[in-house]
Amino acid sequence: MERLEPGHRRSVKDEVATEEPLEIRVDTLEGTRRISRSVSVTMRTPGHDFELAAGFLFGEGILRSRDQVREIAYCGVGEHQEYNVVSVRLRKGMEVDPDLLTRNFYTSSSCGVCGKASLEAVEIRGCEALPLGSLQVEAGLVGRLPDLLLRGQATFQRTGGLHAAGLVTRDGELQLLREDVGRHNAVDKVVGHAFLEGELPLQQRILVVSGRTSFEIMQKALMARIPVVVGVGAPSSLAVDLAREFNMTLVGFARSTGFNVYTGGDRILDWGEA
Amino acid sequence: MERLEPGHRRSVKDEVATEEPLEIRVDTLEGTRRISRSVSVTMRTPGHDFELAAGFLFGEGILRSRDQVREIAYCGVGEHQEYNVVSVRLRKGMEVDPDLLTRNFYTSSSCGVCGKASLEAVEIRGCEALPLGSLQVEAGLVGRLPDLLLRGQATFQRTGGLHAAGLVTRDGELQLLREDVGRHNAVDKVVGHAFLEGELPLQQRILVVSGRTSFEIMQKALMARIPVVVGVGAPSSLAVDLAREFNMTLVGFARSTGFNVYTGGDRILDWGEA
Repeated sequence: MERLEPGHRRSVKDEVATEEPLEIRVDTLEGTRRISRSVSVTMRTPGHDFELAAGFLFGEGILRSRDQVREIAYCGVGEHQEYNVVSVRLRKGMEVDPDLLTRNFYTSSSCGVCGKASLEAVEIRGCEALPLGSLQVEAGLVGRLPDLLLRGQATFQRTGGLHAAGLVTRDGELQLLREDVGRHNAVDKVVGHAFLEGELPLQQRILVVSGRTSFEIMQKALMARIPVVVGVGAPSSLAVDLAREFNMTLVGFARSTGFNVYTGGDRILDWGEA
Repeated sequence: MERLEPGHRRSVKDEVATEEPLEIRVDTLEGTRRISRSVSVTMRTPGHDFELAAGFLFGEGILRSRDQVREIAYCGVGEHQEYNVVSVRLRKGMEVDPDLLTRNFYTSSSCGVCGKASLEAVEIRGCEALPLGSLQVEAGLVGRLPDLLLRGQATFQRTGGLHAAGLVTRDGELQLLREDVGRHNAVDKVVGHAFLEGELPLQQRILVVSGRTSFEIMQKALMARIPVVVGVGAPSSLAVDLAREFNMTLVGFARSTGFNVYTGGDRILDWGEA
């Protein structure tokens, strides 16, 4: 890599965030047959791949509990690609809804493809609104979260190329941090970790994300029953709609000097109120 | 929305970037039958939807030239969703490769799912390396591009929630700017515009993107034959690999005070060299 500045042109060591495809497969045992289905190919930063696979499948409503999973393993088809295909193997008798595997959930909805249908699809997966008052967070803590996340990102300091998602306790302890070139993947890794450790639901946790907050990120948080989502960047309209519909607290543009609360402000205590 | 700052808590007007699903369909006329296939559902910011659909299909290698397209239209299935389904209708006799529609290109590759397979898949779509020396850009211009993009982003000033992609001439004129909640969508809109206007290939243009540069963004630029891609953020490893393999110039962390050139530095002239 070359570094160009006015009057300077020099070679420097090339450090970029790794991006590789990951195929996620679900294997079921049906009678005496093992059926292997490809569910998704996602571009991700290698590392915590089993968490990513478990978190993705949980977020899609395909996995419901740890008990369904017999094992998670890399598929060894060839030496060059064995770490880019993860197979989630279900216990005998465990089935998955084929509709969920094809992500064809708009067909179940009353009004076709639209924001409302996207919200309905979340309800169809069995999600209920979060209870009000399930968690209260002091505003000063919310303001400190971006810095907490950044300090946790050792890799970020090096390449500047990774998104991060963190799970924080109400006391402000960063319990878990995961990074990825993809924002959604970082959240999947966090939720997948909790899924595999039997820590779901996460009704006493805050999710902090480094970038913008999209509909999909809110959906993943809702599936994990996380009541408070804090984004360093802006939320989208559909992220706000989902948060409102399911009683979630959504914060955007979090800084130590202040932040925006789009929904669920009752969970945020004023500075010094705690 | 509430704005919280130490000692203050007040209601302010809620302005967030719109995110809505868009389904992209391809309709072919086969004999006397019209076959309609759903290719993708993407979360996007409404606006320039026909460009988005055309650009996406071109980037995937499904569309090759403007002549293939009879018309592009919104599907009117119900009043609530007619602007969220776009149908790209091909002329009679125009066919599409079903393998491309299912995006199942890893099966064509020699080594399964891996970075190398992702690069091979691009070659399989018929992409050749860009000619060396096809465009030269002065370093000072590269440094000015993020500011040029930002000034073009009227919407960004309001919501802070949108990614942008811009097409710039060698003289530094911002010819086209498109925004979206999704980085890839913004690039698809830019390429789709050029596709529909008959302006492809774009061998004399620079693509500037507001965020990180991924493999997919480089692939879309390559399909449009854009030799120089400038990102405000970091590139991924596979973005750099693709740029190197296909003789593209990839710049990251662009600022007026300097930037990183990951590949194709011969297209960048030093400050004052032009």
